[in-house]
Amino acid sequence: MIKAGIVGGTGYTGVELLRLLAQHPDVKLQAITSRSEAGMPVAQLFPSLRGHVDLAFSEPSLETLGACDVVFFATPHGVAMKQAPELLARGVKIIDLGADFRLKDLATFEKWYGMPHTCPDILAESVYGLPEVNRDAIRAARIVGNPGCYPTAVQLGFMPLLKAGLIDASRLVADAKSGVSGAGRKAEVHALFAEAGESFKAYGVNGHRHLPEISQGLAGMSSETVGLTFVPHLLPMIRGIHATLYGTLVKDAGDLQALFESAYANEPFVDVMPPGSTPETRSVKGANTCRIAVYRPQGGDTVVVLSVIDNLVKGAAGQAIQNMNLMCDLPETAGLTQIALLP
Amino acid sequence: MIKAGIVGGTGYTGVELLRLLAQHPDVKLQAITSRSEAGMPVAQLFPSLRGHVDLAFSEPSLETLGACDVVFFATPHGVAMKQAPELLARGVKIIDLGADFRLKDLATFEKWYGMPHTCPDILAESVYGLPEVNRDAIRAARIVGNPGCYPTAVQLGFMPLLKAGLIDASRLVADAKSGVSGAGRKAEVHALFAEAGESFKAYGVNGHRHLPEISQGLAGMSSETVGLTFVPHLLPMIRGIHATLYGTLVKDAGDLQALFESAYANEPFVDVMPPGSTPETRSVKGANTCRIAVYRPQGGDTVVVLSVIDNLVKGAAGQAIQNMNLMCDLPETAGLTQIALLP
Amino acid sequence: MIKAGIVGGTGYTGVELLRLLAQHPDVKLQAITSRSEAGMPVAQLFPSLRGHVDLAFSEPSLETLGACDVVFFATPHGVAMKQAPELLARGVKIIDLGADFRLKDLATFEKWYGMPHTCPDILAESVYGLPEVNRDAIRAARIVGNPGCYPTAVQLGFMPLLKAGLIDASRLVADAKSGVSGAGRKAEVHALFAEAGESFKAYGVNGHRHLPEISQGLAGMSSETVGLTFVPHLLPMIRGIHATLYGTLVKDAGDLQALFESAYANEPFVDVMPPGSTPETRSVKGANTCRIAVYRPQGGDTVVVLSVIDNLVKGAAGQAIQNMNLMCDLPETAGLTQIALLP
Amino acid sequence: MIKAGIVGGTGYTGVELLRLLAQHPDVKLQAITSRSEAGMPVAQLFPSLRGHVDLAFSEPSLETLGACDVVFFATPHGVAMKQAPELLARGVKIIDLGADFRLKDLATFEKWYGMPHTCPDILAESVYGLPEVNRDAIRAARIVGNPGCYPTAVQLGFMPLLKAGLIDASRLVADAKSGVSGAGRKAEVHALFAEAGESFKAYGVNGHRHLPEISQGLAGMSSETVGLTFVPHLLPMIRGIHATLYGTLVKDAGDLQALFESAYANEPFVDVMPPGSTPETRSVKGANTCRIAVYRPQGGDTVVVLSVIDNLVKGAAGQAIQNMNLMCDLPETAGLTQIALLP
Repeated sequence: MIKAGIVGGTGYTGVELLRLLAQHPDVKLQAITSRSEAGMPVAQLFPSLRGHVDLAFSEPSLETLGACDVVFFATPHGVAMKQAPELLARGVKIIDLGADFRLKDLATFEKWYGMPHTCPDILAESVYGLPEVNRDAIRAARIVGNPGCYPTAVQLGFMPLLKAGLIDASRLVADAKSGVSGAGRKAEVHALFAEAGESFKAYGVNGHRHLPEISQGLAGMSSETVGLTFVPHLLPMIRGIHATLYGTLVKDAGDLQALFESAYANEPFVDVMPPGSTPETRSVKGANTCRIAVYRPQGGDTVVVLSVIDNLVKGAAGQAIQNMNLMCDLPETAGLTQIALLP
Repeated sequence: MIKAGIVGGTGYTGVELLRLLAQHPDVKLQAITSRSEAGMPVAQLFPSLRGHVDLAFSEPSLETLGACDVVFFATPHGVAMKQAPELLARGVKIIDLGADFRLKDLATFEKWYGMPHTCPDILAESVYGLPEVNRDAIRAARIVGNPGCYPTAVQLGFMPLLKAGLIDASRLVADAKSGVSGAGRKAEVHALFAEAGESFKAYGVNGHRHLPEISQGLAGMSSETVGLTFVPHLLPMIRGIHATLYGTLVKDAGDLQALFESAYANEPFVDVMPPGSTPETRSVKGANTCRIAVYRPQGGDTVVVLSVIDNLVKGAAGQAIQNMNLMCDLPETAGLTQIALLP
Repeated sequence: MIKAGIVGGTGYTGVELLRLLAQHPDVKLQAITSRSEAGMPVAQLFPSLRGHVDLAFSEPSLETLGACDVVFFATPHGVAMKQAPELLARGVKIIDLGADFRLKDLATFEKWYGMPHTCPDILAESVYGLPEVNRDAIRAARIVGNPGCYPTAVQLGFMPLLKAGLIDASRLVADAKSGVSGAGRKAEVHALFAEAGESFKAYGVNGHRHLPEISQGLAGMSSETVGLTFVPHLLPMIRGIHATLYGTLVKDAGDLQALFESAYANEPFVDVMPPGSTPETRSVKGANTCRIAVYRPQGGDTVVVLSVIDNLVKGAAGQAIQNMNLMCDLPETAGLTQIALLP
Repeated sequence: MIKAGIVGGTGYTGVELLRLLAQHPDVKLQAITSRSEAGMPVAQLFPSLRGHVDLAFSEPSLETLGACDVVFFATPHGVAMKQAPELLARGVKIIDLGADFRLKDLATFEKWYGMPHTCPDILAESVYGLPEVNRDAIRAARIVGNPGCYPTAVQLGFMPLLKAGLIDASRLVADAKSGVSGAGRKAEVHALFAEAGESFKAYGVNGHRHLPEISQGLAGMSSETVGLTFVPHLLPMIRGIHATLYGTLVKDAGDLQALFESAYANEPFVDVMPPGSTPETRSVKGANTCRIAVYRPQGGDTVVVLSVIDNLVKGAAGQAIQNMNLMCDLPETAGLTQIALLP
């Protein structure tokens, strides 16, 4: 059994990790830390876990975490990079669900996150944890930067087109929509029910932290320079991301459906839907799945890709466990075969 | 492996049965019938099942269903009683999620459902499938009437008080609230998003079909005549039932918390929460659990019980599988250990 | 034109006052104060007011507020009572939407609000602002304590029954449900979209601050001692309160429908619906109306009353303006004839 | 007083017309027809209108409607064109909220709506009712085709850019999102609460009926051939449309903010928000307003416009009344000054 620890388990990615890990056949939950809630049983904060998780939150300590095989950081940026060196030194594998190990370029990290990176060596060693792109490197990694939610949906949607060189990489549009749980479990006015309910708006139009992360990923798929317009929006619902992607064909499209089906033929967690499908976010609610549909409206030269994930699963905790499975030589789908909750 | 069939799988209890049975370790999904959708792959109607369920809907036929070990009826009332005799004759066990085998009194059935019962003998033999009440009888049953959603939440909440004779059985109040999925997947104006969303109302105040079912169940728990006022309400959410129950103490209450904890100490799917808890419906979303809290506000002589379930799981498909497990001599919790999806 | 000021206009009752006062034919919005937002245009915080309200938030000052004819306090408890003496001395009428002038008994106030009352004389003079009960006193008042939202819905529902002495006043049950806007615009985890959405729960079962307020009001309607069990619940929607009220008949009920219709025949803001109606909260969304239906299920001795209001209108800002109209000798319905927004 | 009639008042645009017309200072509601509900008081179907609208639905008849000054058709396509000739002959002005008089090209109409047009002469005479484009023509019109909801939001967002020739008209993208009330009050499975709630999806990607309407409108604003990719999506909320528009700059952008502010400086119902704003749909809920923000992310050559309306008001009933005001020589804003309901 893999001994797993979680740092910062009081947010939504934390409780989602707990839900999934508690049902994972090869994992023993060893520790979950929270400075603010130390001593409180986890199931008191999250009654959904009553009868399933007996742990209490504990003070973060090197001793406790050092005894784990793998530690997940479900923390704001800046936390994982502080603790990573000592844990790696003890042979603990690390999966950071925060942003410390996603951006390879130091200057870019420091510009968008407003702090210096404290362990550039480890950053250089770390692997970006999108298995559909980096599976082999993840298998060999000691430390993985788990992708953001928007970046997962957008990259999986554009990848087949960019790899095939079919669309103008300099003029990509990603119109993305996220449920409110993406804002986390922080007490903030804009995420109140009476603020975010029965309404819809864009945000971060002039620049969102996921923009450089997506751009970095797309650049790796294309031989051209990537130019991306990324507009995130806030949906009046809890879970789910829907990315609507627009690209301009620069050569004969061929059979786009076949291109996508072939690209993801062996991927256990990417589902290319039949022509004419419109993936619903609820079709992946609670599941580690990305569902995709591809269109060429009116036979013109614009390609439209629809890509949906559950932001807390394939966009965070589920993908983190997928990475853990790879890093720990477990079957990639272990503990991740839940069916989406519909309705 | 138990071979399971489903009659009428195009509604919400149908897709929930599919979600749970597809992940059940001891079950093989054998057939799912729908006259209207025969031929269509199940996963086309419910994309959440893509990659998990390969079956297509088939025409209902005695041959197909007769080859099953157990058949679930997820149908409107009147369907199961027509097919039960022949299936039982072939040795198939039956679990009816509709209303045909819930009410023991023929006249009561006919009054509330407006049709004659076509197999009173089988009705007499059938067992009301609330395991916390009838576990042994269910184990031995050939046919089970699976309880309604409201009745499950209300009966489990009142049971310890009535069995102990602590409250006035003639003056019970059940103020119950249900998510919209309880209305099923029928195209009806009152269940439209723009009708049921951002609003709340009571309905059926003068009489709801679950009233006689609840009364019948409560009567079995009390030596007194039962009088119940039952007011159901429609919640602007998809899943979940919350029953708020009021009773008047007629003798020394003693330790109500201890009474409830003791009553459900060995029940795998009933969770008595600590004093002062307010169970949320989301704490059981997708899980086969009933969570309960008991109060005596201001130390007066009114007892308040809060009881929550997921109407589609412990209130329908999950409880049906719990009954199947008992009838088929499987562990009672087999396939039913999912953790609620929170948030 | 009546010159109106608002203290504390950054919350939901504040913006609702602004919406209604900006459209009131006899009112000039003179000042709106907020220590934290002083200088910011109101329409920047609430874009719905763009083009309708040109004011900016100002520092609260005696000078500014003293120039008003009437000042509304949309503040937490403890604020209005500090400023009331000086404003009254300047001849300003006061309507407190907070709790400082609702409870007539000092000890009760101090027990439930945990602070001493700083102006008991003014409290003694103040009038409880439920026009359907205290219309004449309100007309003559210098200062009004505007009722809480739950108390408005519950008192209007029980009043005809208690005044007629029809029900056992010692055993009343009020099962009440409120939209999340009732919790205000404060950044608190329990009111987040991802916490309060798609879920339902009770709260404050052992004691809610509206309990003594309701009890005080009901006591004034009955010659018997009042005993009330009050259980509030949180609805996954923004606006609306639904109170489901239960009483036990102690004498011949007579024609309950006629009793209610007669009781409210001349009330412009109370609508007794036809027999068999189930008032929806959305039927009063944005409107200063309380809609009521009365039932005697199965002809038994339990009376059920359904009472709905918009918590921000008839439960707060609308009722405050109704009180202002009375205090300022305007037509009672001035500025309050909006039709509910449905759907 | 203008005598107004409504044909087909049982849907959402119908009840919204009633809400607005009942409060209009210069209108008398004369008749509202519905074949299916003839005889039923309107306020019985829509309790929000109790106390405000006394009319009952009546059988549609030339006599009744012919006595009106203006008749609104809130009907599916195909109805208005049948009745238009006779009403016009009697001097009645017509505003069709359906699709019969939106598309000027007969073949286009017949292709997208699948029926021949029965009065091409009247179609030729009719005016497309977008006042910001056709104000003078509307003033002189006998019959107006009221724009669709998506077309209103999209056209107002693109207009300043196209008129200035700033963007490549051949490569426009409109990613649009609508609340569920846009689907009407028809009993259809896809619009059920439990289907459309807590989920998000695109639809009509290969072709939506609003595509030719938008294209026709945009073509009128540009000297270039227009090419539009239009992807509508369904939001889990009741009211509101948000259009996110993408265009590619083909010349120096200049000051885009100033361009938009100047374009709409005299428009009473178009609000260009300050730079950096992200208009929320709730900021126009119940109001006849379109709020717009314009961006040039990262200073690149992509322009992003955010445009929000209430689909039932500026996207339907409110705009229809704006057209009526123009056609009947009333102040354009009469009866349309409601403030949005927020929260």
